[in-house]
Amino acid sequence: MNYIIREALETDMSQVLGLTKELAVFEKEDDAVEITVEDLVADGFGPAKKFHCFVADQQGVILGSALVYPRYSTWKGTVLHLEDLIVTEQMRGSGLGTALLNKVVQYGHELGVKRISWEVIDWNEHAINFYESKGANVMRDWDIVQLNEVSMGKYLDNI
Amino acid sequence: MNYIIREALETDMSQVLGLTKELAVFEKEDDAVEITVEDLVADGFGPAKKFHCFVADQQGVILGSALVYPRYSTWKGTVLHLEDLIVTEQMRGSGLGTALLNKVVQYGHELGVKRISWEVIDWNEHAINFYESKGANVMRDWDIVQLNEVSMGKYLDNI
Repeated sequence: MNYIIREALETDMSQVLGLTKELAVFEKEDDAVEITVEDLVADGFGPAKKFHCFVADQQGVILGSALVYPRYSTWKGTVLHLEDLIVTEQMRGSGLGTALLNKVVQYGHELGVKRISWEVIDWNEHAINFYESKGANVMRDWDIVQLNEVSMGKYLDNI
Repeated sequence: MNYIIREALETDMSQVLGLTKELAVFEKEDDAVEITVEDLVADGFGPAKKFHCFVADQQGVILGSALVYPRYSTWKGTVLHLEDLIVTEQMRGSGLGTALLNKVVQYGHELGVKRISWEVIDWNEHAINFYESKGANVMRDWDIVQLNEVSMGKYLDNI
C-alpha cells in the first residue's frame, strides 16, 4: 500500500481521535474516550507538548497512528512510553503496525532512552504475538493499577 | 511515629536512591538500578523537571518516598503516574504507605487529573490488598510490555 509514515500535524488530530475511538470499541470501552480534538491539538502542539505522534498517511487518509511520551524510571532514567499503536481495521496484517513501531523504536533510539514500554490487554493474542516477534518482553506478572476520578473523590472524602 | 510528609529536596536524593535499591532487591532485580544520585538531582530539580517526589522525613532520615510524573491518556488527557511508593522495611504496616498515598492523591486532585495509575507485581498480595482497600482497580487483564536497550539494538539492526 502506498502510504508514508510521518510526524503528525495538528490537522491530523481529528482522524487520530477517530482511530482512538475505533480502538476503544475494540477494547470494549466505547464510552471511556472523553478527550476532544481541541484537547489533542492543545496538548500535542501547544507550548508544553505532552506527547509526540506519528501517523501513516495515504493521500490524506490516516490509516494508523503511534502516540508516545517520556516517562521516568527510577532504575533507568528517561524512558519512552508508547501509549497507542493503532492500525485501522482494514489495514491490519498489512505490515503497517511494523512500519509504525519501526518509527517509534528509531525515535526512542534518537532520544537515547534505555527502554520503550507499552501495555497490552491479555486476550489480544495477535498483538502479543506481534510484540514478542519484535523482541519485546510481555510481562504477565505485572498488573496495572488505576484510581479513577470517582475513586479519587471517594478517597479524598475518607482522608 | 514522628515523621512528616513533605516535598523532596535535592539533598534527599541519596536516601531516595537507597530506598529505590531496597525495593529492587525486594522485587529480585538487584542489578537493574542504573541511575545515580546525580541523575535524580538533574532530572528532578533541573530546568525540565521529569518527576515530582514526596518523602517521609523523620528528623532527617527518609523512611519512605513517592515519586510521580504526568502521563498522557488518549482517553482522559493528562493523568498522574505513581512510579514508586516505597516504605522502608522496618516501617511497613505502620500507616506510612497510606500517608504517602494520601499525599499523592491530594497532589493529583490539585493537578486536576482524572486518573492516577501505577503498577504492581502480581505476587505482592500485601500491596494489592492495600491498593484495593483504597478503592484502586488492579487490572489483572493488562500486561506491561517492554523493549529494553539490548532488544532495541537488535530491533534496529533488523529494520
